[in-house]
Amino acid sequence: MADITRLSLNQATTQNWSVREAVEGCTRHGIPSIALWRDKIAAAGLRECVKLTKDANLHVSSVCRGGMFPASSVEERRRRIEENFRAVDEAAALHADSLVIVVGAAPEVPIDEARTMVADGLAEVATYARKCGVRLGLEPLHPMYAGDRSVLNTIEQALQIATAYRSEEVGVILDAFHIWWDPFVFEGISKSAGRIYGFHVCDWLVPMPHLLLGRGMMGDGVIDNRKLRIAVDAAGYSGPIEVEIFNQKIWDSSGDDILATMIERFKMFV
Amino acid sequence: MADITRLSLNQATTQNWSVREAVEGCTRHGIPSIALWRDKIAAAGLRECVKLTKDANLHVSSVCRGGMFPASSVEERRRRIEENFRAVDEAAALHADSLVIVVGAAPEVPIDEARTMVADGLAEVATYARKCGVRLGLEPLHPMYAGDRSVLNTIEQALQIATAYRSEEVGVILDAFHIWWDPFVFEGISKSAGRIYGFHVCDWLVPMPHLLLGRGMMGDGVIDNRKLRIAVDAAGYSGPIEVEIFNQKIWDSSGDDILATMIERFKMFV
Repeated sequence: MADITRLSLNQATTQNWSVREAVEGCTRHGIPSIALWRDKIAAAGLRECVKLTKDANLHVSSVCRGGMFPASSVEERRRRIEENFRAVDEAAALHADSLVIVVGAAPEVPIDEARTMVADGLAEVATYARKCGVRLGLEPLHPMYAGDRSVLNTIEQALQIATAYRSEEVGVILDAFHIWWDPFVFEGISKSAGRIYGFHVCDWLVPMPHLLLGRGMMGDGVIDNRKLRIAVDAAGYSGPIEVEIFNQKIWDSSGDDILATMIERFKMFV
Repeated sequence: MADITRLSLNQATTQNWSVREAVEGCTRHGIPSIALWRDKIAAAGLRECVKLTKDANLHVSSVCRGGMFPASSVEERRRRIEENFRAVDEAAALHADSLVIVVGAAPEVPIDEARTMVADGLAEVATYARKCGVRLGLEPLHPMYAGDRSVLNTIEQALQIATAYRSEEVGVILDAFHIWWDPFVFEGISKSAGRIYGFHVCDWLVPMPHLLLGRGMMGDGVIDNRKLRIAVDAAGYSGPIEVEIFNQKIWDSSGDDILATMIERFKMFV
């Protein structure tokens, strides 16, 4: 069983909660870490988020998210890079372990060109992040999102990009939902040693009810989260483990119920 | 542009047509090849299908499909292997280029065990297929089907299995829908040289309307079918190119309209 003190609430799991509510929820349930989303940070105000997490003695495992580099116009790509700088600033202010990078995709841009835009955008953001002392965590997304959300789709591909940087600057975020199917997942985890900036758990429901909002609570689907966690540990990662679930049905239930279930399932399946 | 004489109608594209209707449709539209599905073959009768395709001078590019090896009980796995023998018989009778193998998945079986069941099942079927002179084409399916349809999800993985056999016995079926996202797709195609038994085209719609029935007509989505086709050609494949589209809206239109559009789009985008 994973050490329960590694549990982190990724705020996406309690979509209806503000930062304040999520922080208070973590305190009530004894969850020591939280991952904040930028839209929620914006709604609460960055300074307030810093104060809330600090006062609650809550560790910020990550800020979600930077990236989204591919776009058809130069101006739009520039705008997005600038936006990434703001994301880096937020991660720095919150002392987050890393800024999660979801690289993006643009249906009007051929996938190989989009991948070049990712490499170019990342290079600029990495320069800025280095100065700010913020680590960038490249999160490969499931291949079903390659058309519209992320052209970064496997651990192997993420490592090819990350290894152009120092291991304390750019690493990978391993999310069970995105990587569980990979026939080479354990080789990939092992090769990620020294660059694992985060580990996320949830479950893959069968049948998958929805491409975006169909994630399940650990134990409700087909992912062996424990096996993946053990492999991630063996690769030297001992940091927070975020529970990140996009699921309308879960969102519609009470935040406290979500947290209670999450803790129970973490003990049973992670 | 791909040679139009390589066009093959995968019968799944005209789901509402019987084998007879599909064969007659191909004749009307000058399509020289067809891929038949086993449920349709069963409905028409194998002997009748042999006669229909022969009389129409229609080449059978593949029979869809064998596989489906993982199951929780020994008895069920045995039953499925026997079913594969029947599929091989049908492919032999129809002189199909290959029997397409969709390996299957079982939510109640851990993915690594399911992959072992695939290897074991394939070995038995390959022995039988060799005797019958039928080639087995392993089709990697998109990773979004890893939970319930196929634990074979990349070209690389398919080649690892296929290369245990002679190149005239077990090969790969490359379907643009399943492989387009792969960051190593061109390396994979190139490494498949000598073992490519089939190439399928369609498109990936954005947003993807449905996990199963959301495929689009070539040109309506984000896949560069031509680029993939050129790579497949460069790897030495010169056989039929199947159009295989699962899409309720397309199925609901008239078969002749589907074939006319398919030919036009094949010329434009393949």
